[in-house]
Amino acid sequence: MKQSDLFYKTFKKPPRDEQSTNSKFLIRGGFVDKLAAGVYTFLPLGLRVLKKIENIIREEMNAIDGQEILMPALNPGENWKKTGRWSSFEVLFKLKGRDKKDYALAPTHEEVITPLAKKFVFSYKDLPVYLYQIQNKFRNEPRAKSGLLRGREFLMKDLYSFHTSERDLDRYYEKVKKAYFNIFKRCGIGKETYLTLASGGSFSKYSHEFQTVDPEGEDNICVCQKCGLAINKGIKNENPKCPECGNNKFKDVRAIEVGNIFKLKTKYSHAFDLKFRNEKGREKEIIMGCYGVGLSRVMGAVVEVFNDKAGIIWPKNLAPFDAHILYLKSDKSSLDKKIKKACWQVYEKLGKSGLDILFDDRENVSSGEKFAESDLIGIPWRLVISERTLERGSVELKARNKENTQLVKIKDFEKIINLIK
Amino acid sequence: MKQSDLFYKTFKKPPRDEQSTNSKFLIRGGFVDKLAAGVYTFLPLGLRVLKKIENIIREEMNAIDGQEILMPALNPGENWKKTGRWSSFEVLFKLKGRDKKDYALAPTHEEVITPLAKKFVFSYKDLPVYLYQIQNKFRNEPRAKSGLLRGREFLMKDLYSFHTSERDLDRYYEKVKKAYFNIFKRCGIGKETYLTLASGGSFSKYSHEFQTVDPEGEDNICVCQKCGLAINKGIKNENPKCPECGNNKFKDVRAIEVGNIFKLKTKYSHAFDLKFRNEKGREKEIIMGCYGVGLSRVMGAVVEVFNDKAGIIWPKNLAPFDAHILYLKSDKSSLDKKIKKACWQVYEKLGKSGLDILFDDRENVSSGEKFAESDLIGIPWRLVISERTLERGSVELKARNKENTQLVKIKDFEKIINLIK
Repeated sequence: MKQSDLFYKTFKKPPRDEQSTNSKFLIRGGFVDKLAAGVYTFLPLGLRVLKKIENIIREEMNAIDGQEILMPALNPGENWKKTGRWSSFEVLFKLKGRDKKDYALAPTHEEVITPLAKKFVFSYKDLPVYLYQIQNKFRNEPRAKSGLLRGREFLMKDLYSFHTSERDLDRYYEKVKKAYFNIFKRCGIGKETYLTLASGGSFSKYSHEFQTVDPEGEDNICVCQKCGLAINKGIKNENPKCPECGNNKFKDVRAIEVGNIFKLKTKYSHAFDLKFRNEKGREKEIIMGCYGVGLSRVMGAVVEVFNDKAGIIWPKNLAPFDAHILYLKSDKSSLDKKIKKACWQVYEKLGKSGLDILFDDRENVSSGEKFAESDLIGIPWRLVISERTLERGSVELKARNKENTQLVKIKDFEKIINLIK
Repeated sequence: MKQSDLFYKTFKKPPRDEQSTNSKFLIRGGFVDKLAAGVYTFLPLGLRVLKKIENIIREEMNAIDGQEILMPALNPGENWKKTGRWSSFEVLFKLKGRDKKDYALAPTHEEVITPLAKKFVFSYKDLPVYLYQIQNKFRNEPRAKSGLLRGREFLMKDLYSFHTSERDLDRYYEKVKKAYFNIFKRCGIGKETYLTLASGGSFSKYSHEFQTVDPEGEDNICVCQKCGLAINKGIKNENPKCPECGNNKFKDVRAIEVGNIFKLKTKYSHAFDLKFRNEKGREKEIIMGCYGVGLSRVMGAVVEVFNDKAGIIWPKNLAPFDAHILYLKSDKSSLDKKIKKACWQVYEKLGKSGLDILFDDRENVSSGEKFAESDLIGIPWRLVISERTLERGSVELKARNKENTQLVKIKDFEKIINLIK
């Protein structure tokens, strides 16, 4: 895409009321715009990143037999009253319909999916079943200061599983764990993200969080220095030794919760009387699990982890474009024509090879500004074509996460493409 | 996909409280589930259809240089107060944040996109620009009885265009008209959908609606019998003659509004002081247009138009699957093995050729039930393999919208594939 056509704008300074690293960079780089505290518009650059996260998650959910559905944000209040969360869920957005009924804006969907399953699941033959959605959620947070890490409106993937036995839930739970590690690995934060033992609430001893280490994270976790399992600080006292390997040396770090998985067991099936008939024709309560990942939160976490003073450093799989071509204008008009021609040539060749390229074709922007913007936006590869590079018939390549540059002959498209791919 | 794995269930009778043809069939066929009046969950079958509509619309928007963004549903009340629509927009959902501020759930996004453009557009060089989103909208309807045709929560594509002059708006407006005709054509309702002159409200003489003829439609339109332009009944008196061709013979029909396009001109740029500097450095108000299509409403309209007593008849481009293979069990176990084997063979061959197949592999369901379900779900092609067809080494093909069946040799995959494609 030509940059002169792209709807974006970079800002030298972040807005005064933004405190988090992720939102400062994302706003400055033209990825998102802030509409209200914890409420962001995704601009073309930001939506490209979000869609890449979405596709990775969808692929991993389909790979573990998840079936995609789409539930409404607008929920009947009665469903939330049935589980008691109408009053206990502090950040629930409540509203009145003109039919005089109470409604909630869903922050999670147990209150919808459980009665849904009741209409569709009757027998052991219908189980297990795994349903997920990628959908906007709402939380009426009093203070939302962490950018995309804690939104009042945010995009989430939530998966719910339904089983005939706890054993079958356990089996699938382990499968989801693996899928989650795949997700974070593919999103570039595999190394920084720890499986973390957390409180299970009232219905299970423990749940698991996926925590991405970051000094600005809201959570405190203790990472076992031997096996790498982490424990949420909140339950650390219960576990002076690592429950996985018995080691007692931990490192305390701050982290961002990017995912969590729960064994709900019969908590919600009990509330909604969700049962199945087993092989013997006896009615039993269905066993449930739930598994969440915040898409916009992953995007924020990735920016928290991968940045330097100059801007964002996108991991390859999430970058809005594969490469950024910078055209540097020459004062000599015949030379300038040649530079432009070379830019277009490279742009088109790379595009044809399946790469997604942003081409800074702008005439009236200084080289310095172009370099600064390119670093801020953080596309993995920068390709400069200028007087200097053209003298050698070359394009200058630089990886965003490395210091060195290299000149490659323009004719050597294969080499350029292989470096970027 | 194997039908035994699909999360769905068909119902012989529609729910008592559903009145519209579209929701009766969509619920009975396991495409959607009703959560509340005008609020539906899209089940796997229904989401497949919705995603096909989404992809068609996205392609057509990108083809007219639309850039995709994603705006929040949660809108600051102050933006709506600025335009006066906080009080004048009757079906606006209003709620309170825990920050004590007023919020609205957006039924449309002029109140967000206009101040957004103000941060990003300054000069004539930044114009024109075309931004669209595919996003959930909310309307606090007192009565929602039309299924997917009038939801309280519904999926919409809204495009907004920004111009330096009315002439440029006019040029783009015509372009969008063509893109809209493409959308409805690709969705299978091209022939039934009429460009319709409608009231322009306060800011333009006329707007245009796209109306799909259907006896259950909420609107009344008059179709010019000569040129095919339609006029909304509400403004018919102003136009005794067709403004397009001068003819005065009209046919009155009921119709569903599936899209509408407006020349907003400066209505919203004025409210938010959205200006640009022209070539001479003078400040002028930006000229705007807006263009909507309801995705879930298109889905509902398609079902209204294409059905018979037995169920839905999906147009090729929107069908959840390309073909439906029915395995009909034989009592003779050796023959039954052969039937199964043939089913799997055809299923895999068609899948490899890029077709998306639903395979009714279920053992304990009667042939009669399978035929009835297949008609209800409405996939364009039905392929039956049974004792009778296997005797001739054949599969029986039937198009959902035709009466006749034909036997094709199982080995003749090419012929089967060509028929379906």
